Amino acid sequence: MAQQEISCGLDYTIAPDLQACLTEALHANYAFIVSQIVHPRFRLSSLPSGNTVGGFTRSDMILSPQDWNSRVVGRVSGYLDPDSPSPIVQKRHEDSLNEELAYCRGLGLPAVMLSLHSRKSNNLARILQTYFETSHHPTLIWTSVPMVCHRTMRSCDEDNSNEEAWNEPWYWWTKFHECMGWDKRIGVVLEVSADLPSKDVINRWLGEPVKAIVLPTSLFHNNKKGYPVLSRAHQQVVVSMVERDAQVIVSGARRSNIVYYLQYLYRLWKRRPYVVDDPMLSYARGWEDFLQTPLQPLADNLDTHTYNVFEKDPVKYDQYQKAIAQALSDLQMKRKEDMKIQEEDSAVVTNVKEIIPGKNGIVDNDRPFTVMVLGAGRGPLVRATLNAADITNCKVKVIAVEKNPCAVVVLAAQVREVWRDRDVTVIPGDMRQINLSPKADIIVSELLGSWGDNELSPECLDGAAGLLRPGGISIPREYKSYVAPICSPRLWAAARAASPGNAQQIEKNLETLWVVYMQNKHNIAETKPVFTFEHPSEGIKNQDGQEVTDYRGLKVTDNRRSTTVTWEVKQDNVMHGFGGYFDCVLYGKEMLSIVPDTHSPGMISWFPVFIPIRTPLRVQKGDTISATFWRCVNSRRVWYEWIVEVNNHTTPLHNPNGRSSEMLL
Amino acid sequence: MAQQEISCGLDYTIAPDLQACLTEALHANYAFIVSQIVHPRFRLSSLPSGNTVGGFTRSDMILSPQDWNSRVVGRVSGYLDPDSPSPIVQKRHEDSLNEELAYCRGLGLPAVMLSLHSRKSNNLARILQTYFETSHHPTLIWTSVPMVCHRTMRSCDEDNSNEEAWNEPWYWWTKFHECMGWDKRIGVVLEVSADLPSKDVINRWLGEPVKAIVLPTSLFHNNKKGYPVLSRAHQQVVVSMVERDAQVIVSGARRSNIVYYLQYLYRLWKRRPYVVDDPMLSYARGWEDFLQTPLQPLADNLDTHTYNVFEKDPVKYDQYQKAIAQALSDLQMKRKEDMKIQEEDSAVVTNVKEIIPGKNGIVDNDRPFTVMVLGAGRGPLVRATLNAADITNCKVKVIAVEKNPCAVVVLAAQVREVWRDRDVTVIPGDMRQINLSPKADIIVSELLGSWGDNELSPECLDGAAGLLRPGGISIPREYKSYVAPICSPRLWAAARAASPGNAQQIEKNLETLWVVYMQNKHNIAETKPVFTFEHPSEGIKNQDGQEVTDYRGLKVTDNRRSTTVTWEVKQDNVMHGFGGYFDCVLYGKEMLSIVPDTHSPGMISWFPVFIPIRTPLRVQKGDTISATFWRCVNSRRVWYEWIVEVNNHTTPLHNPNGRSSEMLL
Repeated sequence: MAQQEISCGLDYTIAPDLQACLTEALHANYAFIVSQIVHPRFRLSSLPSGNTVGGFTRSDMILSPQDWNSRVVGRVSGYLDPDSPSPIVQKRHEDSLNEELAYCRGLGLPAVMLSLHSRKSNNLARILQTYFETSHHPTLIWTSVPMVCHRTMRSCDEDNSNEEAWNEPWYWWTKFHECMGWDKRIGVVLEVSADLPSKDVINRWLGEPVKAIVLPTSLFHNNKKGYPVLSRAHQQVVVSMVERDAQVIVSGARRSNIVYYLQYLYRLWKRRPYVVDDPMLSYARGWEDFLQTPLQPLADNLDTHTYNVFEKDPVKYDQYQKAIAQALSDLQMKRKEDMKIQEEDSAVVTNVKEIIPGKNGIVDNDRPFTVMVLGAGRGPLVRATLNAADITNCKVKVIAVEKNPCAVVVLAAQVREVWRDRDVTVIPGDMRQINLSPKADIIVSELLGSWGDNELSPECLDGAAGLLRPGGISIPREYKSYVAPICSPRLWAAARAASPGNAQQIEKNLETLWVVYMQNKHNIAETKPVFTFEHPSEGIKNQDGQEVTDYRGLKVTDNRRSTTVTWEVKQDNVMHGFGGYFDCVLYGKEMLSIVPDTHSPGMISWFPVFIPIRTPLRVQKGDTISATFWRCVNSRRVWYEWIVEVNNHTTPLHNPNGRSSEMLL
Repeated sequence: MAQQEISCGLDYTIAPDLQACLTEALHANYAFIVSQIVHPRFRLSSLPSGNTVGGFTRSDMILSPQDWNSRVVGRVSGYLDPDSPSPIVQKRHEDSLNEELAYCRGLGLPAVMLSLHSRKSNNLARILQTYFETSHHPTLIWTSVPMVCHRTMRSCDEDNSNEEAWNEPWYWWTKFHECMGWDKRIGVVLEVSADLPSKDVINRWLGEPVKAIVLPTSLFHNNKKGYPVLSRAHQQVVVSMVERDAQVIVSGARRSNIVYYLQYLYRLWKRRPYVVDDPMLSYARGWEDFLQTPLQPLADNLDTHTYNVFEKDPVKYDQYQKAIAQALSDLQMKRKEDMKIQEEDSAVVTNVKEIIPGKNGIVDNDRPFTVMVLGAGRGPLVRATLNAADITNCKVKVIAVEKNPCAVVVLAAQVREVWRDRDVTVIPGDMRQINLSPKADIIVSELLGSWGDNELSPECLDGAAGLLRPGGISIPREYKSYVAPICSPRLWAAARAASPGNAQQIEKNLETLWVVYMQNKHNIAETKPVFTFEHPSEGIKNQDGQEVTDYRGLKVTDNRRSTTVTWEVKQDNVMHGFGGYFDCVLYGKEMLSIVPDTHSPGMISWFPVFIPIRTPLRVQKGDTISATFWRCVNSRRVWYEWIVEVNNHTTPLHNPNGRSSEMLL
């Protein structure tokens, strides 16, 4: 959840008197301090664990339990290298590290900070996994890495050095995180450097679970009044990191009063550029990276609360109203043209009759247009239709079809109370099973899910195709689902952990679409279309090219799909799954979109989906990601399956036969 | 299990009268036939599934249920391409394939055969997974691929074409198998080509689950008498495939009577070169690729049956006897030298006294050597010791220490009945807890497991170190564990499925060592050493370089280990885990080894171990495999952890904190 306030800590490289340090920091309004666990005065014993007799650091009596629990991040001794090439050093340091970790657990510290210095961290990761396996205390591990590797910068030739030097610490972190199984208890602490990398590199960091950034005081310069301030570029890094939940740690020699750094950061956060008019941002507050199971409005009936939320969308129904208005005026135009033909050649009636059946087989200018709202809910699309009729000065007969009995009650009340002078009829029932006459000139529906067809709009509308007259208009007319491969350890770990403790469930969770307002993620490549559906839909044809019909005379459609999408990778990364979106042509040029680049401004009705893959895939610059998605249908249900290939590596097939997730028909 | 007989089938490309074909084949002694499921006369409907009204192939009445169940392998229509680039063709073929599969299920066919033609088989794999998910009938899928891809052979330049053309079909198969999750119900059928590939390529196939090989009759030429025979190279392929359980399918135009092909194959199999004198081969028959949990002889007591089996090893106790004899004569030699010194300088006694405490502090030529057998079981090492004493003409006092009360009963009986004129004492108890005087000149033990230290020999012998006099001899003196990365879908799938239905258990199974006589596997790279242990072991030293002792005055040892082993990959492959082995120096030049290149001839006491990895890793020629193994110890138990890296891909850490497998102390 994005913070309302910025949370800052103060780093004490040396803290001879911990109590005094904490008092000073709290006095200056810092929220916490970072300090070494082992007091520099104490030397570590060199014996294997179990043979030492305590006393390697301060007593736990010097601070109150509350302070230890919430105010102190413990830093493990920097010299400890459990991945040392020397087996003897390795074992000694392993014992010492375990001792320090056990002490942190004993003190109940909220987080333990340690540093990575290379890609070699297997043994460190192993020790920490054992720590997690044997500890029920919810310690977080903060893994600090520099933004740039100076060693690489120096050792490489000019051309490549830059990119590699900025890549290298990301590799330290991500290989360590991978080895920890992307555990969500592990976060990264980024030591911000004086020079900053390219936007791509910063964006990649924004996809990582950055728990804190370290700002050395040397990054600040004094402004005219003598107060410490940051460069514009650094300001931006700070703000975008804090937006994603990072805390800020001020570290290093104090060139100013420590109060000034904090005050500056507070001001910076308050003054941050904010997209003022985006209702989505305020609507989504609190829902960032929070996974939800997609609704199944076909199988389940929505509740009042859900209707309440969705009906408040400030944009969606406006768009619908414009689309309906456009459709109505197009139909009216067409009718006028038809009347003109009729006047010019009043003998040839039969032809016209087939197009617009009016009284006595003659085009009737006064006949109201029949608009069926399929899945009317509590009536927002009925309202939009009536408004559109008023605007275009058309007569409409509105038929509201709704299967949810609770919503039908509300609709009926509205007909009695609000729409009593309008021609609105409520038909309770499933749109796939009712038969009405006359047929509709326009059918309007809002059956789309976050991934377009994932709430079974195609099946519903095809089932209701008999309600639309030939040549009639469906709003929406077309919709497409989209995906982009993303890096997001946080979302992946959240999906995996959605039902903890059950390995069978973990597999299911990683074969399920999740609705989520994604924040802590990074796009590995652009967003590309997957499945397209059109309405009225084309029926399938037999080998002679003729449309096949079922026993009711309805076209037989086939809403199974499969598509392979490929991307070229522009930057080394780790793929954890896909962001999923949709866009939709309502009618004419009226669109709805939650695709990031074309998102309907201000529309809040849909969060995207996160589509995980079972095992995250490491990708490198120049690799090709190839993903195949299937939309599978049988008589009772619809589900997706997917598989991803990167070079020679293939994921298992996800969700075979819909074993983990499905939508019921 | 290796077959005693060769099992052959006959392929009918066209079978207008299935019953006649089957009768002919059975009459000629073939075990089964391969035939198309869809009779060529019937055309497939083009409608989506559900809209057809049966009748697309023969009636199931033409054969008896027993014949359908055991004599017919159904081949799906060859033109079906569910991975066609055209979505329409794809869906049509998907429907037809499902129809054919459903028919095979209905007939209860033992196996269905289909062909791969490229690396594109995702949709095929998806359809088959759905088939498995929805079918409880145990159909096997036989996936036929050619040995060589002629398309690649033609399209590539001379230099690379060969290798690539032989690699290509293996890729078709392995990518398909990967996509099927290495399901053990899927096997490969190899169409043997006229030209044969390099030994490496054939060996790689020998690691795959080859269910059958197809021998086109064109491979046979007629010998002088006019009977069909194979070239020597083809003979070798046939024999090595059949040894790994493959059946043989004769296919193509009949240039001879079909009986002759079968008779030739029978003769070939009977005359096959057989390692006559290897007791391991006959001992292991029936145990090929059968996974067993390693014994825990320290935590559990062995039973009579197990003792019976191990005591029969024709080689192991001979080696022990030789080693003990060598040790005894070396000790005797040393004693003689010491006596000489004593005679030359009879004043300096104190020094000698410390080395060999005899009567009155003087070297006593007659004093028997004390040999302690630690973990004596039912006495084979006592016997070996007594034999060695006889051979070297040494006096020995044998002390047999054994913790298993049942074995102690047997030992005591042997002392009463067999060894009554020898100096043998039985001490019941745990070698780590008893205290005896005088101390041993030699301790002999056989505590090794398939992976050397995995039955806790180091902990037992270190715990018993106080029983050996300074300068005394431990037999064994040193042992090493070894690993080689291997490709074996069969072993991996068997480990995974060891306790079906429980996903938690699957994870455990893939973090466990399995004892298994591995046959259907292929070594990706050479066998390399992992951990080494020596006895008597060196104690750990403090920072001043002095050995640390515990409260009993015993050296403190540290049997934790960690080692990183790397290999260069010589051929594209898939790694499923490791083969694990050990070798051991008993004393002097006397060795025991189950490392393939140095295996003690005829020794049967140990099968190797298979160490799986959780997700198989695809490796390419030139890649580096880097594996790190840890041996972890705490006060109650010992366990292994491991992690594998290939280029940028890292497996998760296996068995953190011994969560899935451990050895109890």
